[in-house]
Amino acid sequence: MLKKKSRYIVAIVGAAGTVGRELVEILEERDFPAADVVLLDSAESEGERIEVRGRNVAVRRLGKDAFPDADIAFFFAGAANSREHVPAAAAAGSVVIDGSGAFRMDPTTPLVVAEVNLQSIGSHAGIIATPDSSVIALVMALKPLHDAARIKRVVITTFQSVSGTGKEAIDELAGQTVALLNFRDFVNKAYPHQIAFNCIPHVDAFMESGGTTAEVNMRREARKVLADDTLQLTATAVRVPVFRSDAASLNIEMTDPLPPNEARFLLSRASGVVVYDDPVRDLYPLQIDVSGKDDVYVGRIRTDDSVANGLNLWLAWDNIRKGAALNAVQIAEYLVKQ
Amino acid sequence: MLKKKSRYIVAIVGAAGTVGRELVEILEERDFPAADVVLLDSAESEGERIEVRGRNVAVRRLGKDAFPDADIAFFFAGAANSREHVPAAAAAGSVVIDGSGAFRMDPTTPLVVAEVNLQSIGSHAGIIATPDSSVIALVMALKPLHDAARIKRVVITTFQSVSGTGKEAIDELAGQTVALLNFRDFVNKAYPHQIAFNCIPHVDAFMESGGTTAEVNMRREARKVLADDTLQLTATAVRVPVFRSDAASLNIEMTDPLPPNEARFLLSRASGVVVYDDPVRDLYPLQIDVSGKDDVYVGRIRTDDSVANGLNLWLAWDNIRKGAALNAVQIAEYLVKQ
Repeated sequence: MLKKKSRYIVAIVGAAGTVGRELVEILEERDFPAADVVLLDSAESEGERIEVRGRNVAVRRLGKDAFPDADIAFFFAGAANSREHVPAAAAAGSVVIDGSGAFRMDPTTPLVVAEVNLQSIGSHAGIIATPDSSVIALVMALKPLHDAARIKRVVITTFQSVSGTGKEAIDELAGQTVALLNFRDFVNKAYPHQIAFNCIPHVDAFMESGGTTAEVNMRREARKVLADDTLQLTATAVRVPVFRSDAASLNIEMTDPLPPNEARFLLSRASGVVVYDDPVRDLYPLQIDVSGKDDVYVGRIRTDDSVANGLNLWLAWDNIRKGAALNAVQIAEYLVKQ
Repeated sequence: MLKKKSRYIVAIVGAAGTVGRELVEILEERDFPAADVVLLDSAESEGERIEVRGRNVAVRRLGKDAFPDADIAFFFAGAANSREHVPAAAAAGSVVIDGSGAFRMDPTTPLVVAEVNLQSIGSHAGIIATPDSSVIALVMALKPLHDAARIKRVVITTFQSVSGTGKEAIDELAGQTVALLNFRDFVNKAYPHQIAFNCIPHVDAFMESGGTTAEVNMRREARKVLADDTLQLTATAVRVPVFRSDAASLNIEMTDPLPPNEARFLLSRASGVVVYDDPVRDLYPLQIDVSGKDDVYVGRIRTDDSVANGLNLWLAWDNIRKGAALNAVQIAEYLVKQ
């Protein structure tokens, strides 16, 4: 449990990464009561300087020595780093907010989306996990509909930007685009194939079932956050040549009827969700428009009459903010307020 | 009916467009028995010269005067042009192969995908329609599965390249990309929003139901080609920043069980379909790889266990070739062979 203080020491593991930098900014923007912010990352980023409240703070190396004293430790440095260092950080007394996949399905670790299931934090044992970016957006859109009409099954196809992979992928999309427009050669490093002007139906690693970890985990994580193991869900995750923010096409089958207008009303009242849905005026959520925004945007809400009580919709959200850094900060704010 | 000849006069309406130019190339590639190829388009393209079998042929204006003498007339110039000129062409004795949406759902017009329902051509009255590009790929993948296990319902999300909109959209994606990378301003003309580094869930016009014509027609056209009005289908059509070739994520619910291996086997035997499905070796259909190819590529074939007898798969195909020009030429070849 977090001990009550007026200001807290915060550690950010993965501080030099895309989400780490956003964490620094969001903590500042929201005036989080931080006494100190300790920046940690791998050896390659050691010594890199990041502005924290007007001071240039050097990134320290996350090494084998004792985890630094911190009240709250954010981990956004991948599952391997989390598996290696999170237990030590928690044992040293930090409350860990882990953005990796390492502890999400661990039964003693709550998996939390701030607007959906903060109440599950009560039971934490030093580690709180935040879901995959797509799951965060997904459950925020599903929750009000699930409460009203009980969702039976979801078919989701994602349009994921390269920022979810990290800085090297952002550079690769830009570099490949320039190379292609200038008829120059290029190599593929961040992805197995060219991402410029191409879509790749491959996010994370393939499993024996033929699905990727991203696709398979979506159902497990959504079920855990919504606390409903009967929810059926199948996913196809696709990487698209977009720099930032993700989108998804959702097909939803519910137990009870819920006309689009009612769905629109329920979603518009949901915290953290914005309904942006006036197609006749060409208004629907777009990745370029939601970048830098805090909310999950929902549009193209319409009946699917190919099944009883069917609904289609389209989501877009900033995968680095609400899909990662913002949700983690919201969890920290809740811990502080408790 | 087409009169038997050794060589045929062919007219191409929309000759200066993306599909029109591809038609010229495919007729040549496949050595279509053309005595003459008449190129027609709107006033803006009048006089433009296109190479046809080594000769530079001038594009003629499609005007109010009598439709030129032609045995076969391809129409790929949009629904308005087809509505205005196709009846005259058919009345003048041409067999029209229409790629627009104008006659697809007309009960006296067969809607044909060469590998799926050539037999329906028998009943034509001077006009044969070819479906939307997405429908052509969709039914080619569905047909073998439908025959084996009876498909109940399909949820499809498309990833459509800008080439489907035409040359001005190809230029717009290239131009906007360069402008963005150089921090220059740009305008949106081909689409209501920026397409460079962005996905737009809006293909064709919105209807009152909240769906677009592209989405709504997909079900109607697939039902007509497969001759099965019980097939349920819901679609979300999305424009992506890719120059050429389309892709789609398909979720299929069947009446009978059909394991992925069996589906793979049936699809690999289907004419015009190539199974490209070895995810562990990073092999799955990609838009950049299928461009210029004749076949529809299928991969990521896997069980969807969120529903009984569920299957997920991923398609990619050249929307200008198989999705339009090639299918039309295949129909013409069938007419000639009869």
